[in-house]
Amino acid sequence: MQGNDPELPRFEPGWVWLVGAGPGEPALLTVLALHAIRSADVVVYDALVDQRILTLAPSAATRIYAGKRGGKPSPIQRDISRRLIALARENLRVLRLKGGDPLLFGRGAEEALALVAARVPFRIVPGISAGLGGLAHAGIPLTHRETNSAVTFVTGHVAGGDSPSHLDWTAIARASPTIVVYMPLKHIREIVQNLISAGRAGHEPAAFVSKAATPDQSVVETTLAHAPAAAETVAPPAIFVVGDVVRLRAGLDWAGARDGRSLEPDPLGTRRHTDAG
Amino acid sequence: MQGNDPELPRFEPGWVWLVGAGPGEPALLTVLALHAIRSADVVVYDALVDQRILTLAPSAATRIYAGKRGGKPSPIQRDISRRLIALARENLRVLRLKGGDPLLFGRGAEEALALVAARVPFRIVPGISAGLGGLAHAGIPLTHRETNSAVTFVTGHVAGGDSPSHLDWTAIARASPTIVVYMPLKHIREIVQNLISAGRAGHEPAAFVSKAATPDQSVVETTLAHAPAAAETVAPPAIFVVGDVVRLRAGLDWAGARDGRSLEPDPLGTRRHTDAG
Repeated sequence: MQGNDPELPRFEPGWVWLVGAGPGEPALLTVLALHAIRSADVVVYDALVDQRILTLAPSAATRIYAGKRGGKPSPIQRDISRRLIALARENLRVLRLKGGDPLLFGRGAEEALALVAARVPFRIVPGISAGLGGLAHAGIPLTHRETNSAVTFVTGHVAGGDSPSHLDWTAIARASPTIVVYMPLKHIREIVQNLISAGRAGHEPAAFVSKAATPDQSVVETTLAHAPAAAETVAPPAIFVVGDVVRLRAGLDWAGARDGRSLEPDPLGTRRHTDAG
Repeated sequence: MQGNDPELPRFEPGWVWLVGAGPGEPALLTVLALHAIRSADVVVYDALVDQRILTLAPSAATRIYAGKRGGKPSPIQRDISRRLIALARENLRVLRLKGGDPLLFGRGAEEALALVAARVPFRIVPGISAGLGGLAHAGIPLTHRETNSAVTFVTGHVAGGDSPSHLDWTAIARASPTIVVYMPLKHIREIVQNLISAGRAGHEPAAFVSKAATPDQSVVETTLAHAPAAAETVAPPAIFVVGDVVRLRAGLDWAGARDGRSLEPDPLGTRRHTDAG
């Protein structure tokens, strides 16, 4: 019953592959990412990479932690890049494994440019970003015909840990009915205040998805105005989403349905209003 | 040398799985999507699903085309949903396979709500959207520390084929240094005019990525002002991206490097300007 296998490129010694590990669930790795993990001599991984994913690597592979955790100082970006270069020069297959996607708030571009400067050959393997796949596991779509045809992703935590005050929050508030904020917890009060000042309604639906697509996933549905208070119960890493798409979760929480939740076929109430418009 | 396998849920008869097929390259399927394809009794697929991916299904699986192609009329959305429901009621394992991700401009939410109304059990399996994975294959990151911490995705082609005139292009232009437009070709003149009227510079870098992450991928680098003329040479399906991240392609075109392209470690010229601050 098995069909063909997808073709897979060889992971050559002396190369660095910058690979997205997806939102958490190992089955949400791409086939190419799984191949990379199984072929790697050394895995340099971030805090956001699920521990179950690391068990997929060969037992002989060296695992090097390059993230921030438990109050320990994090390696600076330059040191990580230097390490990747040194490992590649030892003629190893170097897997740089990042949570989500390496090129969406993943700083993969910086590491890749350091490899280019050192003339180390590399490949980029995209992954499912938490702002897409994590929300899908929570039953929240990014777009829906009746709600929006634009979505904006922002990070709530810019380089150096500063608040994202340089962003044009007024424009962001107006540009997209759906706004997805990565790393929202530290600056949630400021983010919410900016969005409400820019005209977004305080009663607008919003949600936090914590530890998306893992067995510990939890979803807190709230409103924009109540989000700062709700955030106090949310464990990092989390994604914050604002917009009417959050209401669709009442219909699309397929994971909750497995556990007995009853789903609503018409969470926006559009059928009730057909006559009116 | 092989480690463990990711755990995979059983694809039960009578269920519909709404699955993202990713941007094109079969190896960019998730492990879960590949499992779904190999377990399916029937595959209902869109025009954007790469033909190589369909060959991965069991030879006994029924393949049903539900997309628009070659000038033929496309099945209307309601008919697709009815078909999915009817197939599930035959106690088949029904795979609804969509290009990219089902919940980002994929209309997956509509189909899922129809399944809820019919009490058909379903699961959503996210995929790598072309606006992320396709651009990664072109060497264009969505974010980079020195250029942006926000990115907006819009569709250039709203339901019914209308131009996206209801969007607030002024806000979109200001919200995000990086703007990614899905299905940009039909309304490219209007989109570009809107962005320039809203203050984006005509000389700003822009690119079209056609048939992303397939053997026929082609990338046209241009500027915002020249994009409508450049679009005339671009074959659909295509993604349009505007912003300084396009300049990073000179450093990050890893696929081009395999074919002999020489990469620039400093495509933004930031090192030259270090002294100036």
